Amino acid sequence: MLKGNAVVGQGGGPTAVINASLCGVIEACREYQQVTHCLGMRFGIEGFLEEQLLDLGAESPETVARLKTTPSSALGSCRYKLQDSDFPRLLQILRRHEIRFFFYIGGNDTMDTIHRLEAYCRQQGFEMVGVGIPKTVDNDLFGTDHTPGFGSAARYVAISVKQAGLLARDMRRVDQFVIFQTVGRSAGWLAAASALAKTADEDAPHIILLPERPFDRERFLADVKRVHERYGWCSVVCGEGITYPDGTPVSAAQVSDRFSNIEFGAMGGTSAAMMLHRMIGNEFGWRGEFQVCESLQMCAADRVSDTDRKEAYACGRRAVELVVQGMSGKMVSIQRTSNSPYQWTLETAALSEVAVRAKPMPDPFIHLDGNFVTQAFLDYARPLVGPLPDYVRLGAKPLDSCYSAKSPRIA
Amino acid sequence: MLKGNAVVGQGGGPTAVINASLCGVIEACREYQQVTHCLGMRFGIEGFLEEQLLDLGAESPETVARLKTTPSSALGSCRYKLQDSDFPRLLQILRRHEIRFFFYIGGNDTMDTIHRLEAYCRQQGFEMVGVGIPKTVDNDLFGTDHTPGFGSAARYVAISVKQAGLLARDMRRVDQFVIFQTVGRSAGWLAAASALAKTADEDAPHIILLPERPFDRERFLADVKRVHERYGWCSVVCGEGITYPDGTPVSAAQVSDRFSNIEFGAMGGTSAAMMLHRMIGNEFGWRGEFQVCESLQMCAADRVSDTDRKEAYACGRRAVELVVQGMSGKMVSIQRTSNSPYQWTLETAALSEVAVRAKPMPDPFIHLDGNFVTQAFLDYARPLVGPLPDYVRLGAKPLDSCYSAKSPRIA
Repeated sequence: MLKGNAVVGQGGGPTAVINASLCGVIEACREYQQVTHCLGMRFGIEGFLEEQLLDLGAESPETVARLKTTPSSALGSCRYKLQDSDFPRLLQILRRHEIRFFFYIGGNDTMDTIHRLEAYCRQQGFEMVGVGIPKTVDNDLFGTDHTPGFGSAARYVAISVKQAGLLARDMRRVDQFVIFQTVGRSAGWLAAASALAKTADEDAPHIILLPERPFDRERFLADVKRVHERYGWCSVVCGEGITYPDGTPVSAAQVSDRFSNIEFGAMGGTSAAMMLHRMIGNEFGWRGEFQVCESLQMCAADRVSDTDRKEAYACGRRAVELVVQGMSGKMVSIQRTSNSPYQWTLETAALSEVAVRAKPMPDPFIHLDGNFVTQAFLDYARPLVGPLPDYVRLGAKPLDSCYSAKSPRIA
Repeated sequence: MLKGNAVVGQGGGPTAVINASLCGVIEACREYQQVTHCLGMRFGIEGFLEEQLLDLGAESPETVARLKTTPSSALGSCRYKLQDSDFPRLLQILRRHEIRFFFYIGGNDTMDTIHRLEAYCRQQGFEMVGVGIPKTVDNDLFGTDHTPGFGSAARYVAISVKQAGLLARDMRRVDQFVIFQTVGRSAGWLAAASALAKTADEDAPHIILLPERPFDRERFLADVKRVHERYGWCSVVCGEGITYPDGTPVSAAQVSDRFSNIEFGAMGGTSAAMMLHRMIGNEFGWRGEFQVCESLQMCAADRVSDTDRKEAYACGRRAVELVVQGMSGKMVSIQRTSNSPYQWTLETAALSEVAVRAKPMPDPFIHLDGNFVTQAFLDYARPLVGPLPDYVRLGAKPLDSCYSAKSPRIA
């Protein structure tokens, strides 16, 4: 039976619950005889290459438990793509610290890292088992029903769009539109989740722009006009990565406006929401605002979905259970067994598959018009996000000539 | 004793607790014999001019109570500046509905509206008493220690900057800086409140740019460089209205970059944060992000400060108590009687004074360097914002050659 030290790292962008997975790994490692010490990589595989390690055994049980409610990546993270030349150095560090169990929490680049490192160790005759723990707010990871981190980020988005929708409704005599931009370069899961904010037709959001569908300026402006004619205001949610049919990002496009032709690019620090804002302002002369929250949706610990936190923690624990059973080359995955009531189990997916594929929103989740989601998507997303706050509306009785007889009076 | 109907309206931008004040007005009106019916103006004074009224007596007590936790302006709002020609029409509507009590929740434009309307009614011999209820997230209202709405918006800002600070710290190998923009055109109270997020020197925010101090590009870039040298990342918070010494808004300035000279303006939909982002990117070549949440900080009902909600509600009730006692021409104001423990009472300020003055941050609240706040400000703001979430840090023990003897093991 394999026995030795374990190392755990966090790769890519944080989520509000990635530390819950870390907590699951640390707590489970403490329960198994096979794991002598549990080490932490600082700054993912990049810090590991520099032998930046923490002794997670030195952390108190209280500190470890509080990771469950602490956002961001407590170990530090990176976006480092392994080079072939890195492997001998990695093996050297694994050997020096007798690391036999390798856990890495992240997205597909992270899964690729584990996959390649494990293959190299096998080839070099060093016995080491690695299991991946899924994480991404984007929800575009292959091989799992959904990804820990998504539900909480989606909750942040839905709450924001719901609250800003009330505000836009009430301020429609001043501002005529509001645009909320979500993260998610190539998949629209987070933008789509804003639809959960809606309980009536007039509610935000009215239009959802997904990277899965090409952006059509004329069509978009016509949609905005139609919504505005009906409600007097318009709420638009867009994924940051929406593109024109030729593949040009909306955020990077040239816009012809009353000032000058401006070329934007990645270093220019612009955004799709800003370009849409300018487009509507130029077309209709309306005032409005754009909201670009960026990584705030990846770290809002006070807006976590309970289900998401539970699943993230469970994925961390399961990874440890798998390696001590000798499993390797897998990512823990979540399988949904029932929508209502929501039920799930933990399974596994092959790292080799997860590493090279992505999971955009499937067609049945996207409205035929391409500017909203379907009921099937709402049924999919609702249990992951949890119940949203419910707010009250006034206007039971507009005043005509006479006042309500019901008008209650307290002594 | 004056007896008749009351009308209540909401003016200017919403807050997360402006409906708590509305709830206070409605509930108190139901308790006093002098108030026959409580009417609501749709869309503030602009809707009132169109005789758009609601019978708030027709709302159930449950609906009214739930206003306390419902964000935005449930009656609808406006930013309408009264014209002299509007007054005869206003008087006509007041007479038609026998309105003797006039409540308007808002900022200094709103107070100006009550003040002028009341003077006109007096001049025309129509007996009507009006009292203002303070509201603004900007906290720049004269005559009150602070304004309902500020504490909750400040809480949103401090939580966001705290969470994003953890993220920036953990992701510093990828992104080197983060910029959060708050609302507040001429006063920096909200940007300043982000300082509450800080519990250690390395924590966000590192630099706070206030509209009360001119923006100095060279000085700013030197500050950013110094912070980055020390911590490897940098958190900047800026008020949206920061200006260069000549009064040009940073958001509207020309920036000379690697692409072209670009002129931005109000209709261009840009922001101070974006310009700072571009400035840092061009100077140091770093990656980073800007966060522009706009009105989200004005409607986040789930991030309300308890103190703020209580005070907003109390201000609404007090306005009713004042008018039934015959008081008029006043705004309810909050007076702080003790910082620790925090204690307050309700007083009044003259509408004539509140309407024409603003309250920028006083010098003793701004650090001599102009790029941060003082302890005196923190003492002022902390009780209004309430306790912030506390997150855990790892790194008890970096790993040297030997592992911790403490390394605990369960079972």
